[in-house]
Amino acid sequence: MEKVSLPKGTRDFGPTQMAKRQFIIDSIKKVFRNYGFQPLETPAMENLSTLTGKYGDEGDQLLFKILNSGDFLKDVDKQNLENRNSKLVTWDISEKGLRYDLTVPFARYVVMNRHEITFPFKRYQIQPVWRADRPQRGRYREFYQCDADVVGTSSLVCEAEIILMIKDAFYSLGISDYSIKINHRGILSGLAQIIGAVENESALFVAIDKLDKIGEEKVKEELRPKGFSEQNLSLLFETLNFKGNTKQKIDFLAQKFNPSEKGQKGLKDFSDVLSLVEGFGSNDDHVEFDIALARGLSYYTGCIFEVKINNVAIGSVSGGGRYDNLTAVFDAKEKSSGVGISFGIDRIYDAMEELKIFPKEATASSTVLIAHLDEESFKYSLKITQSLRENEIACEIYPDQAKIKKQMEYADKKAIPFVIVIGSEEVKTGILTLKKMETGDQSKLSLQEIVDTILSNK
Amino acid sequence: MEKVSLPKGTRDFGPTQMAKRQFIIDSIKKVFRNYGFQPLETPAMENLSTLTGKYGDEGDQLLFKILNSGDFLKDVDKQNLENRNSKLVTWDISEKGLRYDLTVPFARYVVMNRHEITFPFKRYQIQPVWRADRPQRGRYREFYQCDADVVGTSSLVCEAEIILMIKDAFYSLGISDYSIKINHRGILSGLAQIIGAVENESALFVAIDKLDKIGEEKVKEELRPKGFSEQNLSLLFETLNFKGNTKQKIDFLAQKFNPSEKGQKGLKDFSDVLSLVEGFGSNDDHVEFDIALARGLSYYTGCIFEVKINNVAIGSVSGGGRYDNLTAVFDAKEKSSGVGISFGIDRIYDAMEELKIFPKEATASSTVLIAHLDEESFKYSLKITQSLRENEIACEIYPDQAKIKKQMEYADKKAIPFVIVIGSEEVKTGILTLKKMETGDQSKLSLQEIVDTILSNK
Repeated sequence: MEKVSLPKGTRDFGPTQMAKRQFIIDSIKKVFRNYGFQPLETPAMENLSTLTGKYGDEGDQLLFKILNSGDFLKDVDKQNLENRNSKLVTWDISEKGLRYDLTVPFARYVVMNRHEITFPFKRYQIQPVWRADRPQRGRYREFYQCDADVVGTSSLVCEAEIILMIKDAFYSLGISDYSIKINHRGILSGLAQIIGAVENESALFVAIDKLDKIGEEKVKEELRPKGFSEQNLSLLFETLNFKGNTKQKIDFLAQKFNPSEKGQKGLKDFSDVLSLVEGFGSNDDHVEFDIALARGLSYYTGCIFEVKINNVAIGSVSGGGRYDNLTAVFDAKEKSSGVGISFGIDRIYDAMEELKIFPKEATASSTVLIAHLDEESFKYSLKITQSLRENEIACEIYPDQAKIKKQMEYADKKAIPFVIVIGSEEVKTGILTLKKMETGDQSKLSLQEIVDTILSNK
Repeated sequence: MEKVSLPKGTRDFGPTQMAKRQFIIDSIKKVFRNYGFQPLETPAMENLSTLTGKYGDEGDQLLFKILNSGDFLKDVDKQNLENRNSKLVTWDISEKGLRYDLTVPFARYVVMNRHEITFPFKRYQIQPVWRADRPQRGRYREFYQCDADVVGTSSLVCEAEIILMIKDAFYSLGISDYSIKINHRGILSGLAQIIGAVENESALFVAIDKLDKIGEEKVKEELRPKGFSEQNLSLLFETLNFKGNTKQKIDFLAQKFNPSEKGQKGLKDFSDVLSLVEGFGSNDDHVEFDIALARGLSYYTGCIFEVKINNVAIGSVSGGGRYDNLTAVFDAKEKSSGVGISFGIDRIYDAMEELKIFPKEATASSTVLIAHLDEESFKYSLKITQSLRENEIACEIYPDQAKIKKQMEYADKKAIPFVIVIGSEEVKTGILTLKKMETGDQSKLSLQEIVDTILSNK
């Protein structure tokens, strides 16, 4: 036998996983739709010119590149080929790459279709992306992203709606213990200003974003060699360590941020978003103002979000924020402010497995197996199968003549919840035996009673 | 501005197309589920060793290959590199390729998971595939396949269920004028035998498969140089030109096939399938026995299917058949009989567009836009928006303060069917104006009346 395997870092999703993944995706998709977001799909392959330079040097390395078709070596630079300069030869033999995220293809779509799109444009997109990263536990080379973005408006209603969507999504998923951490780039800038580190913002943001994981001492260790004085650091932690609810934190910072325009703007935006959430009739349950939240992506300019599920050892399961120039990578003149949120399907899946909260509907099995004892029962079974399907009860007839034990085992292994057994007695009377596999209970019922029983059990 | 474009032969699917595509996919998926098929997804990338040699030489050429990461030129054979032998170098610099169809990945999955799978295994799979084909009208380099297969049983119930699934799917899609052409490999073999062309079967099948398109004379022209005598050809068309309904064709062939065991077996299978369809309570409406139907793929061994939508100039929109050795490409010892059906999403889409039969629900738009006249109305609108969403009415609030004309234009361009306009009067009385965009009708209603109106309009 030929040895077959999967490429490293990739996975098959069999029926059980698919059912659970579809439950997650359908739940989130329904929320996106409910908030007026529209679906978009872009091709797996993009021109390398679209992808490169958008994710930093490391990102460029991690792009999966497609080999040109045909005689790709024909026109490669002789020198580069002889020197085996893989880096330079790449550009001669590859023109396309696999999508690395959904944001750049979305920006590319907006630029290419700007004249047809009605702005503000609310789109969601749920597709796999590929990264040639070293595979490890929880990190794959192919994984789904699940994004919703609005571009073409700077209205804070969008930020409020993101909070509401997160709440609705987690409610649908049955996840109740989670935190939506929120911060604002302006607040971070304000923080940099009041501690005297305006020149050194990015080092500061990178370091404090890890505070959660590595603690105060390590953050200080990281910042000292980067030119932060003890005074800088003491001012920093005086602010970061302030304890209080959201309102108290806002009041505390409002005073501190007196000299920082950006800080004040950030605080005002943030308060306005919370007022809008309230205006929608919701509240700040689950919302946590986290002054240390920075998020890696430097293109955020306003509110930033991150969601963590509590009591599971899994990083953030959702994140996003406001950016001012989505399409600037393609067109410097175009300024399209927008705000987006991304849900991590894989991590939500792992968390829900760990919490054992997948609902029993998240199954890919048929609801009923029709088992039959002989040729005549088999023929009779066909009509029964058809009737159940007409009632939209997913159902299968065991396709072969086989011992009843084998048919029962089939239902059992596939976790089919109900079996109808048909023998000569059933054919004669039309009264059928419905077996509930979980309990082993059997009832003698008419076809209509079976339909009613199953539909009410769904 | 940087010029941005899509790779040749690939497409974006914007909101309108997505809504229609999702309608098609959801309709078919629901049918698959109803018949007990379970979802599977495999990775976009497969090892090249899994893909090559499965689709013939031409297929190997059309595989999209992924460039190895890192210093891929390091270990390439010197001679091959200097000779610029693209073909041989490929194997040194590329280990992975993009999925070319869903059948080979499915076979690979079955082989890898044979000990966990409960057979018969009914799986469906709806994913894109990639082919480095020359793009032309209706032919893309990335397109979706939508397959359902049962493996591990030779029961003809599966063939009957495929006919039923096709009927159910086309019923859900609203396509009423179509033909399910059916033939059987055994019948084709019988035909080859009775015309005296057993040695030359494949040339025969390739030629007659085109009968529909090119006509009798061209088929003869194609066969003559391949060693078919005039007697062979006259016997051939005597059979192919027999006119009659399915029953008459079967009787006619039964006599002819007296000497052909394969032919008789084929006829018996075919009749049994039709009896099973009847046993399920259905009939042979839409079913057409086409003795000339051969289908390209040589791995079919039993019934073969092809579906054409009548009165649209689009080729077959669905096809499939029975095969005896799905996994033999990976494991010669393993014989797993199965039967599969594949729906062509793109062609079904084009046909439905041409026939103008997409239902109005196949839209990605919100159902309602909330427009507002001033700051106070805007605040009031938030709660109205929330109430509609709680009733699962997809709805958006215009996020900015803007002239009512602009808000109306937004609804109009996005084809949002209802607009609720909120001004100071509405805030005071709670009686809202619902405008139906299609007719321009306006009604003054309470929120609850609006909810009821919209839900009953869905």
